[in-house]
Amino acid sequence: MSKFQRHAFVCLNERAPDNPKGCCASKGAQEVFSLLKRHAHEQGLKGRVRVNRAGCLDACDAGVSVVVYPEAVWYAGVTVADVEEIVLEHLVEGRPVERLRGA
Amino acid sequence: MSKFQRHAFVCLNERAPDNPKGCCASKGAQEVFSLLKRHAHEQGLKGRVRVNRAGCLDACDAGVSVVVYPEAVWYAGVTVADVEEIVLEHLVEGRPVERLRGA
Repeated sequence: MSKFQRHAFVCLNERAPDNPKGCCASKGAQEVFSLLKRHAHEQGLKGRVRVNRAGCLDACDAGVSVVVYPEAVWYAGVTVADVEEIVLEHLVEGRPVERLRGA
Repeated sequence: MSKFQRHAFVCLNERAPDNPKGCCASKGAQEVFSLLKRHAHEQGLKGRVRVNRAGCLDACDAGVSVVVYPEAVWYAGVTVADVEEIVLEHLVEGRPVERLRGA
């Protein structure tokens, strides 16, 4: 049973500016999240694919971090410039964007 | 590639008290999240299983909502009384707790 065909989680965690771990929020996570959600809706994915806010995904160095389930594909260093490709290639076509995959 | 063996997301979304949709936060989501995280760590799952904060999982009526990936098992109406069973049965043993599964 799966409520969604795909479920993307964007780390929106925010740490204090002097925290050595850094955080996704300081690297544009909110913009990535909003754009990902908007593009997914524009592609008619509402109800089939959910784009979700998430707390710390434990990949702070690699932020902005996004993980897509059920295939457990992790994206690292995502920027707003990458969002359209993730939506069209992965969320619509089911082909993970290899160049953005995290370690 | 999967960073975690299992990844549990707990909805911590909070709506205004007069919102007819209700929300997980008002049904004890923070307590469920904290206890789930603590029990998972006590079972030695740190690094293998991650318990994550999430925004609205789009299952407000069924809150507190928890979803576990990659198996995409949805739990509905989770309370602190259910947490130990979810951890021991599902997160440790890999057997979803059928009585808690959402529609």
